[in-house]
Amino acid sequence: MQSPHARRLVSLLSRLPGVGEKTAQRYLLFLLTAERQLADDLGRELTVLRDRLVPCEKCGNVAEVSDVGASLCDICADNKRDSRLLCVVARVHDLMAIERAGSMRGRYFVLGKLLSPLEGVGPEDLPIEKLVTRVREDGVEEIIVATPPSVEGEATALLVKRELGPTGVAISRIASGVPHGGDLEFADPITMGRALQGRQRL
Amino acid sequence: MQSPHARRLVSLLSRLPGVGEKTAQRYLLFLLTAERQLADDLGRELTVLRDRLVPCEKCGNVAEVSDVGASLCDICADNKRDSRLLCVVARVHDLMAIERAGSMRGRYFVLGKLLSPLEGVGPEDLPIEKLVTRVREDGVEEIIVATPPSVEGEATALLVKRELGPTGVAISRIASGVPHGGDLEFADPITMGRALQGRQRL
Repeated sequence: MQSPHARRLVSLLSRLPGVGEKTAQRYLLFLLTAERQLADDLGRELTVLRDRLVPCEKCGNVAEVSDVGASLCDICADNKRDSRLLCVVARVHDLMAIERAGSMRGRYFVLGKLLSPLEGVGPEDLPIEKLVTRVREDGVEEIIVATPPSVEGEATALLVKRELGPTGVAISRIASGVPHGGDLEFADPITMGRALQGRQRL
Repeated sequence: MQSPHARRLVSLLSRLPGVGEKTAQRYLLFLLTAERQLADDLGRELTVLRDRLVPCEKCGNVAEVSDVGASLCDICADNKRDSRLLCVVARVHDLMAIERAGSMRGRYFVLGKLLSPLEGVGPEDLPIEKLVTRVREDGVEEIIVATPPSVEGEATALLVKRELGPTGVAISRIASGVPHGGDLEFADPITMGRALQGRQRL
């Protein structure tokens, strides 16, 4: 595509996660041929995105900008949620996955990143202090660390345990094992080891 | 996601080709967390898309809106192209694929759709008249029909042959056969049949 406007749009679209130049071109042609109105609508919504949606001031989840006072997400604003139970996650995506399961009655805290010395992310880059303040102010009694069962996720869980342990709060970690519907035959050795180690009495 | 703004944006994004709700949510979270500037840039470009890029008046390819006179694409505006050779394609995507190959020295004509009685697309829905005019006005001597080798693509090629035949222009069809690097073992029977039928003397 020769047109500078088209080239610029393709290069912007291809910065979306998982979108390469070909997919970006496909999106552009779709917007140009099949759905010209969609481009306008999408453009308008994206332009105001920054003014409308912000990270929740309390937990880091997606929140609408409030006209009055703090911008809280629906979960932090919901009085029916148990504020004594706090689920610590790495990303908003993870929070949403847990919400979809529908069995979390507490609130959340989004770390934003995981401890990863290889990528230069140290303990000082995580909002641990904010987490400690949150635990104190909200009277949190239990923290469930729901970081992924990866090296970074486990390291981050241990960091939370080390930093929050002295506050006296109970800290637990989500279970790791063979997934529901999963075949034992295809479980990798680490998953299988965790499934055995994390066994529960029947 | 509870926020109406977020929900609206996810529903708009999921109208892009191949994008479902989960991917749309992923795009939104990326725009919200990793790349807040990208949302602004993308929004601005999309808002002006309709005013800047239009189908080329001559061939249907993507063209920038011109301040003076007709909006022609780069290929139609390029004097070095041979206007006696015209390649008829179904979509702009196909035109781009042919351009990437770099061996087409003529110009193009984008039909926009293929003949498809099942989907209610009849001969009257195709810009055949415009094609006839183009052939006359530009003094086209050969038409290469590069519609896909599918039922709809073949039917459209036959329609072009029927309608343009009387003008005396030479009409050819792109070759169909086993693709370069393809394994004969995995070629489907129709492809293999075409490869045999379209054999060329060595």
